[in-house]
Amino acid sequence: MREYEDYYSYFEGVLNQVDFKGQPKELYEPILYTLKLKGKRIRPVLTLMACELFGGNIEDALPQAMAIEMFHNFTLIHDDIMDNAPLRRGKESVFKKWNPSVAILSGDTLFALAYQYVQKADKDILPDVLDIFNKTAIEVCEGQQYDLSYESDNKVTVEQYTDMIRLKTAVLFSASLKIGALIGGASMEDAHNLYDFGINIGIGFQLKDDLLDTFGDEKVFGKKTGKDILSNKKTFLYLKALEIAGDRDRKQLVDFYSSKNHNKEQKIESVKNIFRNLEIDRLTTEEITRYYNMSVKSLEKVNVSDEKKEKLLAIATKMVERNK
Amino acid sequence: MREYEDYYSYFEGVLNQVDFKGQPKELYEPILYTLKLKGKRIRPVLTLMACELFGGNIEDALPQAMAIEMFHNFTLIHDDIMDNAPLRRGKESVFKKWNPSVAILSGDTLFALAYQYVQKADKDILPDVLDIFNKTAIEVCEGQQYDLSYESDNKVTVEQYTDMIRLKTAVLFSASLKIGALIGGASMEDAHNLYDFGINIGIGFQLKDDLLDTFGDEKVFGKKTGKDILSNKKTFLYLKALEIAGDRDRKQLVDFYSSKNHNKEQKIESVKNIFRNLEIDRLTTEEITRYYNMSVKSLEKVNVSDEKKEKLLAIATKMVERNK
Repeated sequence: MREYEDYYSYFEGVLNQVDFKGQPKELYEPILYTLKLKGKRIRPVLTLMACELFGGNIEDALPQAMAIEMFHNFTLIHDDIMDNAPLRRGKESVFKKWNPSVAILSGDTLFALAYQYVQKADKDILPDVLDIFNKTAIEVCEGQQYDLSYESDNKVTVEQYTDMIRLKTAVLFSASLKIGALIGGASMEDAHNLYDFGINIGIGFQLKDDLLDTFGDEKVFGKKTGKDILSNKKTFLYLKALEIAGDRDRKQLVDFYSSKNHNKEQKIESVKNIFRNLEIDRLTTEEITRYYNMSVKSLEKVNVSDEKKEKLLAIATKMVERNK
Repeated sequence: MREYEDYYSYFEGVLNQVDFKGQPKELYEPILYTLKLKGKRIRPVLTLMACELFGGNIEDALPQAMAIEMFHNFTLIHDDIMDNAPLRRGKESVFKKWNPSVAILSGDTLFALAYQYVQKADKDILPDVLDIFNKTAIEVCEGQQYDLSYESDNKVTVEQYTDMIRLKTAVLFSASLKIGALIGGASMEDAHNLYDFGINIGIGFQLKDDLLDTFGDEKVFGKKTGKDILSNKKTFLYLKALEIAGDRDRKQLVDFYSSKNHNKEQKIESVKNIFRNLEIDRLTTEEITRYYNMSVKSLEKVNVSDEKKEKLLAIATKMVERNK
């Protein structure tokens, strides 16, 4: 049985051979730069795995896996402009290394290039694949807009936050799976159940991201923790804390999150202490488990042998149990 | 026989009924705002006309006409950020009225929404339509990048400029025609000749834009002339002038175009005088005529009756003979 690493290596090998020979170079250099930054490639791997799950050849799903990874990278290029993020995968983000105009335009081009890969689907299945791809692209944009809007909205609820990460993050995992499944020959019902699996595991994945950013073990995590706290990001942890905190803690949290002028280390420690007292780490882990269990239920409904599903289940487990 | 105005009214009527009920409103308001600014709608009209030219119903080409107009509007939203243009069609541009993040994201969404209309093509013709649409989208981005790059490039030639406007402007006219033609049932050969017609008339259209911006009759043109001169835009007029000018005129032109500190009215008048002495207005008009004649030749090759082609020819003529 192939492991995650096998799919990863296969995809990475193909991606590294991609060389858009287009002109002008100002447009194509940032695209190649972005695509060749080291990434986890979870989405394209899911597409390849989903295709194989139903007896398809991974080669057949490769153009769609490429399309999805390219779309994902396009969103990263544009998100970094909006979030004013100087780094991406440890390297300079495109708008920093070049400039915002180049980032806008090379992002747009990458989006269009992604559709050139979508287009390679068999004529019979193209309308369905295109339908999922378009719907997902729109939802990801909606998710990003909610994320931006929530920055200045002090009444965001846990439910709204969850719906935001569903759009911004989870639907692309789902679409990766569903498109792969359809190319592999899945029935629409199976593809749909796999989609639900992706939604739940995608939400779990993002909640785990939130948890690690605050409570990760820095030695294992490999990054400084507390970034979300410093940038006043209204994650699940913060919103859940507001929901259950007493007046004093709530007031303190709101105060910490309404300015960036606190001493950094002190702010991180104080907020973490409030979180700890409210057992937010435990509550977040429970929420992750709840989504994980829902994803398992959706996967159970898919009509292929348990043995074949094992790999996907292993990835799902890894996505929520990882420590980095 | 239907006139331009009939197609325009039909399309405008449908467009005005479009109401993306999506959420969040921060994303969809700028999209509706942009789509509902008054525009010439040349591209969708060309799609409808091309469809009818081959015996198709304009209703069948409507989704593609929408897709093309939406794509065009997406490029306007993003171009305005890159060009720092405060106005679009006489109203505030999206990034000014909202902010750059909203403009980036609502542009991205509009691009994805355009594909939802592309997708409505018949299954049999979808791959061809998608192929043209994707290729065109990429070329338009390339054209915009050349346009940006040429701002700081002092060695741009007339040929390079023409190729830039071919990509940035003409290919979308061509694609509008070709897609409409294919939906109307045209042969690939006819669609291709119509595409060539579009390229040449598109280049002629942009050259006319350049000419009017400098030498338009303000009373008819409805706008102040000299905008391109003030912003040091290297249009056909400027590049042609550099090509044929003697040392003294060339030095003066380069000097005028290397700063924005000259007295505005004086700069416009001085540059226009150099242009006039070099007969740039006549040379530009000749170049427009050359492209117009090439477009007529391409149209002649299309296998439909001359009578049916008359409308398209009338539009082509209007596009290059207009005074506003």
